[in-house]
Amino acid sequence: MRRVRFSDPAGSVRTGTWTEDGIEFGGRTYDPETVDVRSPVKPSKIVCVGLNYADHAEEEGMELPDRPMLFLKPPNTVSGHGDEIPLPPGKESVEYEAELGVVIGEQCRNVPEEEAMSVVDGFTCLNDVSNRDDQRVEQNWVRGKAFDNAAPVGPVVATPDEVPDDAAVELRVNGEVRQSSSRDQFIFSVEELIAEITAYMTLEPGDVISTGTPAGVGPLSDGDVVEVEIEGVGVLENEFTRR
Amino acid sequence: MRRVRFSDPAGSVRTGTWTEDGIEFGGRTYDPETVDVRSPVKPSKIVCVGLNYADHAEEEGMELPDRPMLFLKPPNTVSGHGDEIPLPPGKESVEYEAELGVVIGEQCRNVPEEEAMSVVDGFTCLNDVSNRDDQRVEQNWVRGKAFDNAAPVGPVVATPDEVPDDAAVELRVNGEVRQSSSRDQFIFSVEELIAEITAYMTLEPGDVISTGTPAGVGPLSDGDVVEVEIEGVGVLENEFTRR
Repeated sequence: MRRVRFSDPAGSVRTGTWTEDGIEFGGRTYDPETVDVRSPVKPSKIVCVGLNYADHAEEEGMELPDRPMLFLKPPNTVSGHGDEIPLPPGKESVEYEAELGVVIGEQCRNVPEEEAMSVVDGFTCLNDVSNRDDQRVEQNWVRGKAFDNAAPVGPVVATPDEVPDDAAVELRVNGEVRQSSSRDQFIFSVEELIAEITAYMTLEPGDVISTGTPAGVGPLSDGDVVEVEIEGVGVLENEFTRR
Repeated sequence: MRRVRFSDPAGSVRTGTWTEDGIEFGGRTYDPETVDVRSPVKPSKIVCVGLNYADHAEEEGMELPDRPMLFLKPPNTVSGHGDEIPLPPGKESVEYEAELGVVIGEQCRNVPEEEAMSVVDGFTCLNDVSNRDDQRVEQNWVRGKAFDNAAPVGPVVATPDEVPDDAAVELRVNGEVRQSSSRDQFIFSVEELIAEITAYMTLEPGDVISTGTPAGVGPLSDGDVVEVEIEGVGVLENEFTRR
């Protein structure tokens, strides 16, 4: 099942199901093009993983980590499918990063790897938009990663049965493929990430673990349309603009 | 005025006023010792500032920053006055850091310095509890700063008129003074911090900017009682335990 949050034509925010026929809620079916699709989650925090694909670590000239490299995106970063995202003003190098997002289904702490999938509500697409101008010179990536709208998420939360263990992760800019990998290339598995993160912090329903990006990151320019596609989830599309 | 959130004897969470007579709400006055004082804020994020006092930068052997050094504490870090805080298991070096917390009163973005105080609801005490074992070896201080209960806050939000520009910031461990400085020793003022942070991110009502700690940080041990006192706010007290 693929769950979607959207504003219906009367402006009410509803949680429906995205099927082949459209978005279904309350006995009605809406055309996804005619409703405002919102972020499917309202996280209290997004815990992001850096360097979780060997090929991306190589392109960044970084050594493979011996444990997950973590950073945070707070709630102000969340945007939805279809939202037009302003590039942060005055920054020269802003880049896309396609990521598989793990959506947490229940409050949890100290979850062992073997039980980790029981706290997973499903999967989504996330674009870890990164301001390299600041990221390069910061100890903690706050200006670099936590600016407003730096985490478009969606379009749906797909239940785990929809998403294969080797789900393809792809990113396109204006239709051209820039990143192409799959979930089985992770250095740290979803289960390992949940165990490691919950050893330190409580996760809440709707919190997202963003699992890192594969090789092929690159710059965003005014008017670029970026699609993050994850097999079994769908396509998260956003236009980026410089105003 | 000093605003406090607390659970009354029937378990209802109320927001009252902390006066010389006690905690006042709904025509009743409660003894602060007999109610459960909660965090006075429910932030969507805490934006912390590193190295905002010259003497602390010196003791850490760090150069003075040319702009605020920022990091994040998510909502799972929040604890209240009087809460018993478990030291993170297996970590040898966990330290206290007394900080003045700025509580935001309205949703805001791109706030100029000269208008910054208009978005401030008030001030509070914050203990930026830090796990140095991990902080020393992380790019982003997530395990080091964002673990559960790493941000005791309170006991009240004091309106700006209560807190002088040179408010004393003091921390005591088991009654012994370990940190002693004042707000006029900041490298970056409250106004400068608000302008810089809101150039990147929207702040929400209840969000906290934690303004950095002065010299004198040190270790926490099982049973330590830590008091953070800020002139005009009051005393935030927590016992730390190793279990």
